[in-house]
Amino acid sequence: MTADAVKAAPETYKMLLENDRVRVLEVRGKPGFKTAMHSHPAHVAVAIRDGKFRFTTADGQRVDAELKAGQALYLDRVEHTTEITGTGDAHVILVELK
Amino acid sequence: MTADAVKAAPETYKMLLENDRVRVLEVRGKPGFKTAMHSHPAHVAVAIRDGKFRFTTADGQRVDAELKAGQALYLDRVEHTTEITGTGDAHVILVELK
Repeated sequence: MTADAVKAAPETYKMLLENDRVRVLEVRGKPGFKTAMHSHPAHVAVAIRDGKFRFTTADGQRVDAELKAGQALYLDRVEHTTEITGTGDAHVILVELK
Repeated sequence: MTADAVKAAPETYKMLLENDRVRVLEVRGKPGFKTAMHSHPAHVAVAIRDGKFRFTTADGQRVDAELKAGQALYLDRVEHTTEITGTGDAHVILVELK
């Protein structure tokens, strides 16, 4: 199984809180940074700053996403790499569901 | 039962997305604004901007909270009023759990 986000990319994903319902991660990164392949359970991503991202799954599928501060995105369980394609530092909160 | 947040305070709570796992609300308000009494299921609050809040439950208990942009807070099911006690506009995302 692909590694958990915090284990695969601890420089990018920091755990803010965890209980029996959720695990909340802070995502921070510099423009151009690309994580190793990692997995997330179903989660809601909330952008704290405007940002652009490229997600690439193991089979090579790419999805580009642009999030404005305050936007939220729901994603089902996924395994991918994340690249910060915007010009500013990324700051996103992930609310992972258990 | 106390009204749902979106029904009790539609000027403050706007639904961003909903599925079978979560309902995501945007919370926006001016300094000094206080909502009617309303309820939330268990949820994660994520601050998009720095903000200060006072929550008052039906029995008069008050909790003051200060959140920095990017901070996250987990709250169990609650019925309360919310007052924006900071000096700037509030902007928070709530990820309500089903």
